[in-house]
Amino acid sequence: MAEIQKQMQELGKNARMAAYLIANASTEKKNTALKNAAEALRINKQKILSANEKDMAEAEKNGISGAFLDRLKLNDKRVEAMAKGLEEIANLPDPVGREIERWQRPNGLDIARVSVPLGVIGIIYESRPNVTADAGALCLKSGNAAILRGGSESFHSSNAIMDCLQEGLKKSDLPEQAIQLVPTQDREAVGEMLKMAEYIDVIIPRGGKGLIKRVIEESRIPLLQHLDGNCHTYVHEAADPKKAISVVENAKMRRPGICGATESLLIDEKVAGKILPEIAELLISEKCELRGDEKACAIDSRIKPASSEDWGTEYLAAILAIKIVSGLDEAIDFTNTHSSHHTEAIITEDKKAAERFLKEIDSAIVMHNTSTQFADGGEFGMGAEIGIATGKLHARGPVGLEQLNTFKYVVRGNGQIRPS
Amino acid sequence: MAEIQKQMQELGKNARMAAYLIANASTEKKNTALKNAAEALRINKQKILSANEKDMAEAEKNGISGAFLDRLKLNDKRVEAMAKGLEEIANLPDPVGREIERWQRPNGLDIARVSVPLGVIGIIYESRPNVTADAGALCLKSGNAAILRGGSESFHSSNAIMDCLQEGLKKSDLPEQAIQLVPTQDREAVGEMLKMAEYIDVIIPRGGKGLIKRVIEESRIPLLQHLDGNCHTYVHEAADPKKAISVVENAKMRRPGICGATESLLIDEKVAGKILPEIAELLISEKCELRGDEKACAIDSRIKPASSEDWGTEYLAAILAIKIVSGLDEAIDFTNTHSSHHTEAIITEDKKAAERFLKEIDSAIVMHNTSTQFADGGEFGMGAEIGIATGKLHARGPVGLEQLNTFKYVVRGNGQIRPS
Repeated sequence: MAEIQKQMQELGKNARMAAYLIANASTEKKNTALKNAAEALRINKQKILSANEKDMAEAEKNGISGAFLDRLKLNDKRVEAMAKGLEEIANLPDPVGREIERWQRPNGLDIARVSVPLGVIGIIYESRPNVTADAGALCLKSGNAAILRGGSESFHSSNAIMDCLQEGLKKSDLPEQAIQLVPTQDREAVGEMLKMAEYIDVIIPRGGKGLIKRVIEESRIPLLQHLDGNCHTYVHEAADPKKAISVVENAKMRRPGICGATESLLIDEKVAGKILPEIAELLISEKCELRGDEKACAIDSRIKPASSEDWGTEYLAAILAIKIVSGLDEAIDFTNTHSSHHTEAIITEDKKAAERFLKEIDSAIVMHNTSTQFADGGEFGMGAEIGIATGKLHARGPVGLEQLNTFKYVVRGNGQIRPS
Repeated sequence: MAEIQKQMQELGKNARMAAYLIANASTEKKNTALKNAAEALRINKQKILSANEKDMAEAEKNGISGAFLDRLKLNDKRVEAMAKGLEEIANLPDPVGREIERWQRPNGLDIARVSVPLGVIGIIYESRPNVTADAGALCLKSGNAAILRGGSESFHSSNAIMDCLQEGLKKSDLPEQAIQLVPTQDREAVGEMLKMAEYIDVIIPRGGKGLIKRVIEESRIPLLQHLDGNCHTYVHEAADPKKAISVVENAKMRRPGICGATESLLIDEKVAGKILPEIAELLISEKCELRGDEKACAIDSRIKPASSEDWGTEYLAAILAIKIVSGLDEAIDFTNTHSSHHTEAIITEDKKAAERFLKEIDSAIVMHNTSTQFADGGEFGMGAEIGIATGKLHARGPVGLEQLNTFKYVVRGNGQIRPS
């Protein structure tokens, strides 16, 4: 067996064993481990920053720059933010062991559906060292063991952070193997990880499309995946123009780079002449590029012609595609055809139209009179999240602590046997 | 593009379009379609039976016999059972549109989690024509479009049944494409189906291990899968001997061929000398083969020595593996190591021991003082089921109408924008 395969198998076995212990650990122990890990991050701040300097130097040597480098960089403030993040997760309710449903059968059997951890979660992410702390902590609090594989550029930083997480576990008398980092930068390790169905229950990929496509292609393990966030906002004929303008501005421009940012704006032709110029004025003043269909371009000459590709693009930038539609039917049909089923919103004062949109749009999150930028676990009141799921199985939308649990049926009897 | 690929893409496109209509169809329309289909099955009984005779003749010509042939065979009674099955599904509650949770945020946003259909479900099954009716009906009632691929030996029977289902849809003014059968017997069609992630949301494989392994290996689409049912029953030292004997007999022998049948019996060494001989006596009188570890063989000479393979085998037959354990710790550890995480039971009058077993066993269904043969959607009160899921994501245990739904978040606002 190749060396990497051996290492990965070892990691998997350790995680599986730790998973049984962590699944049954008390809330208090898990919280203490998180608080101890936060303390360790603060105490070892210099070590973490030195490790990060090593990563940064190597990355710069390899010609990496820009946003990538910014995400890799740690400083005093970012280490403190990680420590605070762990403490916040400690303060969230424990998702394990909730009785979700309970009922009795005529034969006296008592059946309960109870939340339990998923088991071992594999998380594959890009070179963002803070994800090591976040992801590890969310898995721990939800009673799961974690195998983390960060981008190779963040290897030293992630290792230094992992040491603190494991110190926290050890101090609370929990198995260190409950959170492990893949011990090699070799890309082959990811391939091995995606085959280890015996040891890993779920894989969560976090990062760019290239990474996620590779994982979908190769994985033999079920995924909780985040694909595209090609979100739509539709301004209906009965929209309040003021609301429409401020919500569209927020949905696009608050943070154009997040997955919940609106990428396509649909406007009803009956109000486009009135509302579109104002929206265009505001967005252009904020340096947003506008690309529209023929009708949109005819309304405002500053709008550039959109190509058919624009309707399917997640820009993650200050660019907005604009389409004039004939009404609710076309808006629903166009959205269901082009969206990535993440988050879509309608702006209208017509409740009937709103309810039809909310019902018929096939997306994880559907909204009425508010900004798609609210598509976020924190904003939903779920506490920290590990991402937004765009698949349909298990979790849809924000993946927080509850979504890192599954359930089991607990059946209590007094000797019942099943008649033939 | 190859002919089969073209045909499958066409099927997929039709299913996707039908899915939007069926997702929003009223409960009444769906129920009427099911009742109309039941009527069509009765009216076209002779056609169905002739088609089945054709399948049977071909199968016999190809040397197929035994249980396989029995599952393929239709007769008056079986057609009537299919029709009744459709009517029963019509009488079950509609799972679509339930408000699962609803809460308000401090900023006034109102968030609801509402059940919605999965979309398009692909079901791949062996040559059991009745599954065509069952699976199609469960998908329809749960608001999903279905693409069905039955074993090629049942091709003519399944087509005749499909005609009746589509007649039911048509008569209720629902799109016929809501339930479709793969129109070719070519095995290549399955390969195509497993790649159509654009058109199929979930694949459910039903059948033997060979089929399911192929599907896991090839599928690019998320699965709801049923793997093994290697179920355990553990007789604890504080077991009531009478309950232990009758529950073990039922768990093994009621129907040895179902996935919830107990395959391994664990007995505490403190009571094995007393309880095992009685269990052995009863099971042997019913022609059950017993295979045990050394200690079990020493207690009753009619027990044959088990090999290490026996602990991991789903016999689906009148064979039982028996292991003597030192207590609860070993029982939990052994079960978690060897089980397929389907259903496991403890027999004991000691509530504390029972609760520890129920908590620490990592299976979809855990039971106290009852028979693992109760692992069934009908027995759980869930109505008809399409199978038992042994994965951890989305559905665990019986997959009924509710489990064929996912959910979406519905967010209602009055102009809220997200602060930066």
